[in-house]
Amino acid sequence: MLKIILSGCNGAMGRAITKVASESEDVEIVVGIDKYKDRYSNSYRVYDNIFDFKDKADVIIDFSHPSCLEDILTYGEKNNTPIVIATTGLNIEDDKKIEDASKNIPIFKSANMSIGVNLLIDLVKKAALALQDNFDIEIIEKHHNKKVDAPSGTALMIADAINEELDNSMEYKYGREGKSAKREGNEIGIHAIRGGTIPGEHTVIFAGLDEIVEVKHTALSKNIFASGAVKAAKFIVNKENGLYKMENLMN
Amino acid sequence: MLKIILSGCNGAMGRAITKVASESEDVEIVVGIDKYKDRYSNSYRVYDNIFDFKDKADVIIDFSHPSCLEDILTYGEKNNTPIVIATTGLNIEDDKKIEDASKNIPIFKSANMSIGVNLLIDLVKKAALALQDNFDIEIIEKHHNKKVDAPSGTALMIADAINEELDNSMEYKYGREGKSAKREGNEIGIHAIRGGTIPGEHTVIFAGLDEIVEVKHTALSKNIFASGAVKAAKFIVNKENGLYKMENLMN
Amino acid sequence: MLKIILSGCNGAMGRAITKVASESEDVEIVVGIDKYKDRYSNSYRVYDNIFDFKDKADVIIDFSHPSCLEDILTYGEKNNTPIVIATTGLNIEDDKKIEDASKNIPIFKSANMSIGVNLLIDLVKKAALALQDNFDIEIIEKHHNKKVDAPSGTALMIADAINEELDNSMEYKYGREGKSAKREGNEIGIHAIRGGTIPGEHTVIFAGLDEIVEVKHTALSKNIFASGAVKAAKFIVNKENGLYKMENLMN
Amino acid sequence: MLKIILSGCNGAMGRAITKVASESEDVEIVVGIDKYKDRYSNSYRVYDNIFDFKDKADVIIDFSHPSCLEDILTYGEKNNTPIVIATTGLNIEDDKKIEDASKNIPIFKSANMSIGVNLLIDLVKKAALALQDNFDIEIIEKHHNKKVDAPSGTALMIADAINEELDNSMEYKYGREGKSAKREGNEIGIHAIRGGTIPGEHTVIFAGLDEIVEVKHTALSKNIFASGAVKAAKFIVNKENGLYKMENLMN
Repeated sequence: MLKIILSGCNGAMGRAITKVASESEDVEIVVGIDKYKDRYSNSYRVYDNIFDFKDKADVIIDFSHPSCLEDILTYGEKNNTPIVIATTGLNIEDDKKIEDASKNIPIFKSANMSIGVNLLIDLVKKAALALQDNFDIEIIEKHHNKKVDAPSGTALMIADAINEELDNSMEYKYGREGKSAKREGNEIGIHAIRGGTIPGEHTVIFAGLDEIVEVKHTALSKNIFASGAVKAAKFIVNKENGLYKMENLMN
Repeated sequence: MLKIILSGCNGAMGRAITKVASESEDVEIVVGIDKYKDRYSNSYRVYDNIFDFKDKADVIIDFSHPSCLEDILTYGEKNNTPIVIATTGLNIEDDKKIEDASKNIPIFKSANMSIGVNLLIDLVKKAALALQDNFDIEIIEKHHNKKVDAPSGTALMIADAINEELDNSMEYKYGREGKSAKREGNEIGIHAIRGGTIPGEHTVIFAGLDEIVEVKHTALSKNIFASGAVKAAKFIVNKENGLYKMENLMN
Repeated sequence: MLKIILSGCNGAMGRAITKVASESEDVEIVVGIDKYKDRYSNSYRVYDNIFDFKDKADVIIDFSHPSCLEDILTYGEKNNTPIVIATTGLNIEDDKKIEDASKNIPIFKSANMSIGVNLLIDLVKKAALALQDNFDIEIIEKHHNKKVDAPSGTALMIADAINEELDNSMEYKYGREGKSAKREGNEIGIHAIRGGTIPGEHTVIFAGLDEIVEVKHTALSKNIFASGAVKAAKFIVNKENGLYKMENLMN
Repeated sequence: MLKIILSGCNGAMGRAITKVASESEDVEIVVGIDKYKDRYSNSYRVYDNIFDFKDKADVIIDFSHPSCLEDILTYGEKNNTPIVIATTGLNIEDDKKIEDASKNIPIFKSANMSIGVNLLIDLVKKAALALQDNFDIEIIEKHHNKKVDAPSGTALMIADAINEELDNSMEYKYGREGKSAKREGNEIGIHAIRGGTIPGEHTVIFAGLDEIVEVKHTALSKNIFASGAVKAAKFIVNKENGLYKMENLMN
């Protein structure tokens, strides 16, 4: 039984992981960490400070906030506990800290824990290379009407992966309007559609001379990110020190 | 045999109508009018001035430019010739002139001559009324990478038709980007995708609580606009004086 | 507070209505009826026989099984209680019984309680009439891989509505295979895609000469059918005797 | 200037290649071969027998019929002329003959000459392997209403490529209908939609637990197959003897 410390347990993703874990036979959340520790009643203890937890656990899953990163890394290094970091909004300094810590413990990091999204990224990298001469690339993403940021972090993650394949020669265009709004050759158009309760959709379009190739991912619920994080936890727990990502899990 | 004066005969749409007419057994282009009268060799005479044409014709199809409007209306009124106006980019004054002329001759006017697009407009007006309480409306249009304006005239025509049903309460949003880019309730998002040789696609999305309704039109070639204009010419030729639009033809 | 008798309370749809009702401020389930009355613990009493319930209620929602129909109609007529019938799989005799009972009490009947699906049916009827001369009609429906019947009842409901507009001149084609499998002009192709946990999608395609019109409905969860049934219950409760359907609610 | 012998020059694909070649500056059709040699007037000579051609050419493009295969292979071997075979409907014996001939001359063979379709096949093979444990695979293809065979040869080519990755464990299902039509785990559903003038669309759906990955190719005209064949001709002309396919051209 894999013993999990769940950081950010009372957020939307924390709740989803709690549900996935409760339905799984080989993992168990032994403690939750959350700033709002009393927001929900959970079947496990919840602390607002990870250092209040004195027992043993096998792995940390972190779906909290960049501001909690330092505590989690410190705890992980001190207790020799591998970490799965699924937090979004990390900056370059955060990334540096993670890289440093990964010399002492195994760390798995991904801004999107879905197997499908990561496969999509693999596929569009391949497509971008094969079609680079004559095809225009556009990304359409759809999400619910409460989403605050646009485009989605995942859309940017996809665009960046494509751009890297193309020697970072592309510029991102977040909308078009006007009488003289002709497309430039080095644009990746990124379009953020918002409406109702759409859970999440990303489509990459490669449009060429008389043919179009499209790769699309549809998320039907948050569960896929929760399942992916638990899968990452199982993957990382016995690995060597180092920094791992979805590519390692998938291949 | 319906005798047609084709204004704008050497533009892309004029060429498409020439092709449709040549394959039809009951219409005939008797003269073309075009500023660039020698650009192509046509099977009919071409003048750069409509008043140089001295024979009889049954109907004018105008796919030229707003700057030619006055001549065409004058010719039509003088010779009692009905007109199909398919020009885009007309302003309010142009519309006023057309309305005045339509007291003396039958005039058919539409910025999009496709039966399918006009049906789409009918359908989304109905949907907008039925779903107005809880649904967010977004429009995605796709066109080839040479298109200069964004969004397409047709996308705006669709948005305006919806907006009118909703008491002109909506605002148009042509792209979203930023950390605080949350959708407002009174937005219609309009997204212009550009790539390769995509001939033209318009999708209207109504996204609500756990359900989505979409209406989509795909143009596979310019021929549909040419066929629609010829259909309008046949429709208008024996009508009373007045201003007609696609709705009249379709019902 | 609208007092509801929920027939079929322990089925998947009964559970969804229980959830919707518990989150609503103006409706209340006062009793559940279910053959498997002890399957779940509910916040309301559950009987396996509707006649065991002796208190007053305002309306019955029936999401059970055709075999329960007779009891429900008898109870409704005896107690002067309006009924919302959402059961699928009813045969012609069942329909006759419902029609007879509707002379004595208001009855609302629909095989699909979603506002969106019923709007789609309205739209495609209109489209079928407008495009009948030159367009081919195909229906694609997608559902999860556990669904037993194919095509879905809703797909057939859509096809029947279209067919009625076209004087019942169409034949349904459930798949194509072979060296000589050319489409006939009077076919409606109906294609049942099955996979994973897809909650439900219906697309009607009208494909003509160089243009395509599509109308699509996507269900993101079962909640839309539950909400629709509750909406129907509120609608029916003060109506005259008679048989009502979604069209009445929507217009 | 690459000198091409175009076998099947008066078929639909032969005409498309003629157009592509006439617009290209580095290839030239020096002779056409066609059973119906007088059907069209071409800018090049046309024979009904390849052996009537006595001049030199660099490469043969064959878009004719399996019945012409033997002559073409014989001519190619005799004159040391590389061949691009784009004919569909070849049987196992034909394949054997091609393989034998490829020992003496370079031969390029593909049932679909589009770069995009061949990329799609690459991508779905990768996806099929990555997702094989929990995902259901379905293929939807759309074509015009005159197409005689169903599903399309390309849809079968895609299905076979996926099936090979999965140890040929899958069975193909060409439609679903009935009260007990539940999906089996080892099915690939293949659905042939037909309507209007749709030029050709292939979508592969991988539907799993709460997520879906889709890869789609849209052909907007026959030109892509013509361009692909010309590209293959340029590729093959200086290669070693052997049998080549799209994979070789693309990597």
